[in-house]
Amino acid sequence: MATQIEETLKRIQTSDGVIGFVIINSVGIPIKSNLDDAMAVRYAGLVQQLIATSMVVIKKGDPTDKLTYFRLRTKHNEIIYISGLKQGTIAV
Amino acid sequence: MATQIEETLKRIQTSDGVIGFVIINSVGIPIKSNLDDAMAVRYAGLVQQLIATSMVVIKKGDPTDKLTYFRLRTKHNEIIYISGLKQGTIAV
Repeated sequence: MATQIEETLKRIQTSDGVIGFVIINSVGIPIKSNLDDAMAVRYAGLVQQLIATSMVVIKKGDPTDKLTYFRLRTKHNEIIYISGLKQGTIAV
Repeated sequence: MATQIEETLKRIQTSDGVIGFVIINSVGIPIKSNLDDAMAVRYAGLVQQLIATSMVVIKKGDPTDKLTYFRLRTKHNEIIYISGLKQGTIAV
């Protein structure tokens, strides 16, 4: 299982244009990243804000619904968030 | 030009799994939709919240950056927002 995760992370890291990844726990704390700590904490914090707003938006429509993924693209950047059971994965 | 927009909207509407679209002006007011008014206003409001949080997140990273697109996927739904010069297009 561990090698499978390592391989997946390697694939994310080596994908074209990807700066890095951050794995966050269920409360948004970075637990693994190839970015420096300050950058990992910053992206984790930014994504937490987006997750919080997304949850408000989603629950208004359907209280049983759950966020699984979001992708935010800007002129200069892109943030992808994939929600897992206990962790979440951020790619930037 | 108008027929091109109509064709694009038709394509969005007839895409698999798409419930509908909402075109919003620069302040988030629905100006065209195939959904009923209440639904269009609700989605426009939800997307405005996501846009507002996204802008905060983006501007923290790079004040010159600008949101162009986001995609929010949940267990039961999906919201796609594409930012245009004067309008924004929402597909659900």
